[in-house]
Amino acid sequence: MKAVMKPGTGLKEIGMVLAAAELEGLSAYVVRDGDSVAVCMPGACGAEFESRISRLPGVESAAAFARGFKIVSREFRSGNTVVNVSGVRIGDGGTVIIAGPCAVESREQLMRSAELMRECGAHMLRGGAYKPRSSPYSFQGLKEEGLRILSEARERFGMPIVTEVMSPSDVPIVAEHADMLQVGSRNMQNTALLEALGSAGRPVLLKRGMMSTVEELLLAAEYIASAGNRSIVLCERGIRTFEHVTRNTLDVAAVAVLKDLSHLPVIVDPSHATGRRKYVKAAALAGVAAGADGLLVEAHPSPEDALCDGEQSLSPPEFADLCASVQRVAEAVRPAGSRGVGGEL
Amino acid sequence: MKAVMKPGTGLKEIGMVLAAAELEGLSAYVVRDGDSVAVCMPGACGAEFESRISRLPGVESAAAFARGFKIVSREFRSGNTVVNVSGVRIGDGGTVIIAGPCAVESREQLMRSAELMRECGAHMLRGGAYKPRSSPYSFQGLKEEGLRILSEARERFGMPIVTEVMSPSDVPIVAEHADMLQVGSRNMQNTALLEALGSAGRPVLLKRGMMSTVEELLLAAEYIASAGNRSIVLCERGIRTFEHVTRNTLDVAAVAVLKDLSHLPVIVDPSHATGRRKYVKAAALAGVAAGADGLLVEAHPSPEDALCDGEQSLSPPEFADLCASVQRVAEAVRPAGSRGVGGEL
Amino acid sequence: MKAVMKPGTGLKEIGMVLAAAELEGLSAYVVRDGDSVAVCMPGACGAEFESRISRLPGVESAAAFARGFKIVSREFRSGNTVVNVSGVRIGDGGTVIIAGPCAVESREQLMRSAELMRECGAHMLRGGAYKPRSSPYSFQGLKEEGLRILSEARERFGMPIVTEVMSPSDVPIVAEHADMLQVGSRNMQNTALLEALGSAGRPVLLKRGMMSTVEELLLAAEYIASAGNRSIVLCERGIRTFEHVTRNTLDVAAVAVLKDLSHLPVIVDPSHATGRRKYVKAAALAGVAAGADGLLVEAHPSPEDALCDGEQSLSPPEFADLCASVQRVAEAVRPAGSRGVGGEL
Amino acid sequence: MKAVMKPGTGLKEIGMVLAAAELEGLSAYVVRDGDSVAVCMPGACGAEFESRISRLPGVESAAAFARGFKIVSREFRSGNTVVNVSGVRIGDGGTVIIAGPCAVESREQLMRSAELMRECGAHMLRGGAYKPRSSPYSFQGLKEEGLRILSEARERFGMPIVTEVMSPSDVPIVAEHADMLQVGSRNMQNTALLEALGSAGRPVLLKRGMMSTVEELLLAAEYIASAGNRSIVLCERGIRTFEHVTRNTLDVAAVAVLKDLSHLPVIVDPSHATGRRKYVKAAALAGVAAGADGLLVEAHPSPEDALCDGEQSLSPPEFADLCASVQRVAEAVRPAGSRGVGGEL
Repeated sequence: MKAVMKPGTGLKEIGMVLAAAELEGLSAYVVRDGDSVAVCMPGACGAEFESRISRLPGVESAAAFARGFKIVSREFRSGNTVVNVSGVRIGDGGTVIIAGPCAVESREQLMRSAELMRECGAHMLRGGAYKPRSSPYSFQGLKEEGLRILSEARERFGMPIVTEVMSPSDVPIVAEHADMLQVGSRNMQNTALLEALGSAGRPVLLKRGMMSTVEELLLAAEYIASAGNRSIVLCERGIRTFEHVTRNTLDVAAVAVLKDLSHLPVIVDPSHATGRRKYVKAAALAGVAAGADGLLVEAHPSPEDALCDGEQSLSPPEFADLCASVQRVAEAVRPAGSRGVGGEL
Repeated sequence: MKAVMKPGTGLKEIGMVLAAAELEGLSAYVVRDGDSVAVCMPGACGAEFESRISRLPGVESAAAFARGFKIVSREFRSGNTVVNVSGVRIGDGGTVIIAGPCAVESREQLMRSAELMRECGAHMLRGGAYKPRSSPYSFQGLKEEGLRILSEARERFGMPIVTEVMSPSDVPIVAEHADMLQVGSRNMQNTALLEALGSAGRPVLLKRGMMSTVEELLLAAEYIASAGNRSIVLCERGIRTFEHVTRNTLDVAAVAVLKDLSHLPVIVDPSHATGRRKYVKAAALAGVAAGADGLLVEAHPSPEDALCDGEQSLSPPEFADLCASVQRVAEAVRPAGSRGVGGEL
Repeated sequence: MKAVMKPGTGLKEIGMVLAAAELEGLSAYVVRDGDSVAVCMPGACGAEFESRISRLPGVESAAAFARGFKIVSREFRSGNTVVNVSGVRIGDGGTVIIAGPCAVESREQLMRSAELMRECGAHMLRGGAYKPRSSPYSFQGLKEEGLRILSEARERFGMPIVTEVMSPSDVPIVAEHADMLQVGSRNMQNTALLEALGSAGRPVLLKRGMMSTVEELLLAAEYIASAGNRSIVLCERGIRTFEHVTRNTLDVAAVAVLKDLSHLPVIVDPSHATGRRKYVKAAALAGVAAGADGLLVEAHPSPEDALCDGEQSLSPPEFADLCASVQRVAEAVRPAGSRGVGGEL
Repeated sequence: MKAVMKPGTGLKEIGMVLAAAELEGLSAYVVRDGDSVAVCMPGACGAEFESRISRLPGVESAAAFARGFKIVSREFRSGNTVVNVSGVRIGDGGTVIIAGPCAVESREQLMRSAELMRECGAHMLRGGAYKPRSSPYSFQGLKEEGLRILSEARERFGMPIVTEVMSPSDVPIVAEHADMLQVGSRNMQNTALLEALGSAGRPVLLKRGMMSTVEELLLAAEYIASAGNRSIVLCERGIRTFEHVTRNTLDVAAVAVLKDLSHLPVIVDPSHATGRRKYVKAAALAGVAAGADGLLVEAHPSPEDALCDGEQSLSPPEFADLCASVQRVAEAVRPAGSRGVGGEL
């Protein structure tokens, strides 16, 4: 956290902030930048602490600098990061739509999907070759065969590919075929995997664990960044709560919180967040209205035949309708001419 | 739940649905409406059961008809209900903004609030005279004096008033001064209060309990409706989860779920949902994008001086900015000419 | 919170604690008691803050004194409170078993229940006359007729009665018939009801809200205590979490936390906590092992015929087995001769 | 799930169960075993479904057979599995205590810990060489050096060692030094790791994810079992809820649920469950009272100096007191002569 002091603040006020840091068990140091004075507390975090600091006499503003994450924090980089995935720019003010089926089921299914998604307006194609499943007896994906099908679709339809990687030892082969590597919700704190992605040479799509706080998501991103890879896109995909009418609960405010605490792009997965086709559109529009840089949407040529997650997959007409509505909401929330303000890291 | 059968469906398929109901321990009966056949299961509910039924052979569609709520359900009334609060119509396709301070603190504070809110574009004024507080030692509100101040603000600025009522015995006096009576989150399952509101003669704003499911919220509304009062507006205000970077977690998809299951208007309270001023706007826009009929926003002439909830109250310029953005998003999500489709109940 | 300083601590260390309080926005004052020095912070609370304070140089120990509750706190009274319910003493080191059906269904059912419960070893009888139900169409209890049946059972079997009260206006009539008044989970923050119980003239059994924190439970107790009634027994009955294999999740550690923060007796309701007959015994024994002063158990002469909660009600043989096991565990966790150490408030 | 039918049940009743399975989208088959008839539904699960099936006419009992787990289920093996860890038998009716510091910090610290733990009554030694940390900048463990220190402690004090493994590629080296391999909460759904443990040749201690359901825990165990390793001990270590007065919420009823659904031993980690030294004992006794086969406890020669988790580590006298109390409660809940009833798998 960085507490910026008001001009002319005396030693007593600065001392109070230093004492606050010590009380938290944190190191703190005073930074002078021209006329302004600030107190930096590298490990400080939490809404409550931030609000307490900001109410101290002499403090002009206190900005979070959450415990342990540095490279991915706003203090590290005040402008927005733009992640370039083989030409598709995520985080530059536009709304990138990544769509496709839950799993790559066959060559035919994926080609048909890719064609339909592109027609409807998707910018990137998603599809699982390695599938994390709760049960060892469920369909685990086509694995390498799936990767080859994804590669072929990229060539044929000119859309970058994102697909999940589940083990450090699979990072090289997935990186060879895909444009972007996805870390799934269940593996968000698989630190061996996060570290391996540091040298993957590909952008990473990091999904929030269904049971993870915003801070833990940023710390997971910090693992990747500190291992050498700063091309990271964060994804809010719903958290687990007591409410079960939807599969998860979309934490839409987390989009704003993440954009506030970090310079990384943030996208929303309305499909896993709701788990029910008829609520996907509302969740998608909510995410865009809250400031998301893009969407990750499950769509399938014929959802009723899908091998997994058919209940939450959109049909092509539903997906086309979603894309059109997203466009209108994105224009409503983004000031004209705002695209392109960020820079690539 | 109502399962509509495909044309020409035979006895075997209908029998399967009846068996499903019996297995749930529910009564079920076959309804013929012209050529179409449906199976009604009054107490059936749940996403999982609905999806199971909808996959049965011969079933064209299955629509939830959640356990125990009838009058407030979509099956009871397919069109949207419009609640008329002294001339302000909630649920007719527009976006109603209700704003004001957490608590009525003084005559001056409320008059200043009302004037500023009206200038910024609010349609109704909120303010607590009776305050539910976790601690008996916290400020409990000005009570009757607060009601009189609210009444005066209504007369002077021509805005309908909504304020909370906490006890059955207070219903008459609050109904005398306010245009709409609010049930707070902590009292959502206070059934004695809900029943008393059945004969209050005023519309009710029913806030979701921070720990209550969507189904429980609809059942609470059913208590009011079955006691004689159908002018009810539902309010999603954030639920309690493990995430504490925001005060609560806005369950934005619940807006779509509630509009799907019920004909009642739904508004969103982004102030309690986030608890932090800087995230209120994102949550508000997300709510509108998800289909909310309005917003309940805490704003204060000088938030830093507020006796309660100052951290989540918007300043007048922040509130004016919010109103302008809400307008743009509302236009983006609502088809042109969609206003006025509902009817008053 | 009270921070007790180490002997010989200097001004610098005391000042650090005072600064910590100011940073929290709390008043703090130094108390000298003979040779020892302490800093009292009436509104301070939270595990995190307590741990931070306890790590400060010069601090010997920091004991919570949670925000807003005073009369019910350990600081207010270091010995255990014993609540006397018509001769049954709760909190004196023994394990009081309160048992009976969810609802009073008929005179016959209740008399049979009372007889069986007494034979099996119950000390008090429970049974609902006013039933809080999520749906207005569910059985709402026999009301006054139920109260009369309960009164009769008390006379006939010599067991004190506890039953729920749901509205301030019902307090007098319930207090006339019952020995102890229960506040249900849904009404834990119904402050009008809590205040009315202040002058009920009967001990109160206060159940924790299913999504209320330990601190909120103590604040609810403080409402009753500050309104004049200090005969309060707290009840942990399971909280709402993402896990649904049981109806709720028994927060068994809360028993120890409550006993640590408050001098009031604490009992456990294993029936609502698990919602499934076959897990009730494990939850009951766990509660006793964690230090509970008693149990509130649903048992029914023939659970399969119960009008409500039959799935979680024990049959008479199951209940007798539970009582015997409870006795053994209670002896294992309580030092010999520990009974009777508390005093009535 | 297996539904056992009453003797003499007719086709209609069996058909009803078959229809129920079909409605769930499950395969079902009728099994005749002598005179008795049962319907097996391999993928069926859930308390609600089980209860629905058990209420059908003609059904004598329905026992869960949760979706996807087979080898680890009670149906697969009705007796209790005993896991033998280098001579220490977990699951045979006794209460095994595994204790030690959070992390191996130095040779001296671990030797001192091992000596003290053994004196106090621990059966096995724990200590982290590879530490999963939320932040990449926190202490990550001594790694291989830590493993060597653990090995040395085993030789010197004759206690089997359990330590965490975090990556498939580390399985061989950890298996070389440790007697039992631990999967941490964050890696419970790291399926690559689970599969690698199938051929580790060492028993596995599988900790429940902090926001994973009981069913997901059993499915994770099934991954290990189906990959070839059936020596698995499950560990309940607290789940993440809204309550933050303790670090997590011990789901003590899950012990009984797991013992009901699976034949695997179950232990409890009261240290992570509460996160606060003063509540560890209550949680430990509750776990034993609920039927746990053992405890995993953090203890440290001088908790205030611990590099991690010092707040929840017991001092040697506290640990000795815990061991004595555990013994008394274990005797109270276990029928005399019950040890040794299980068999090794």
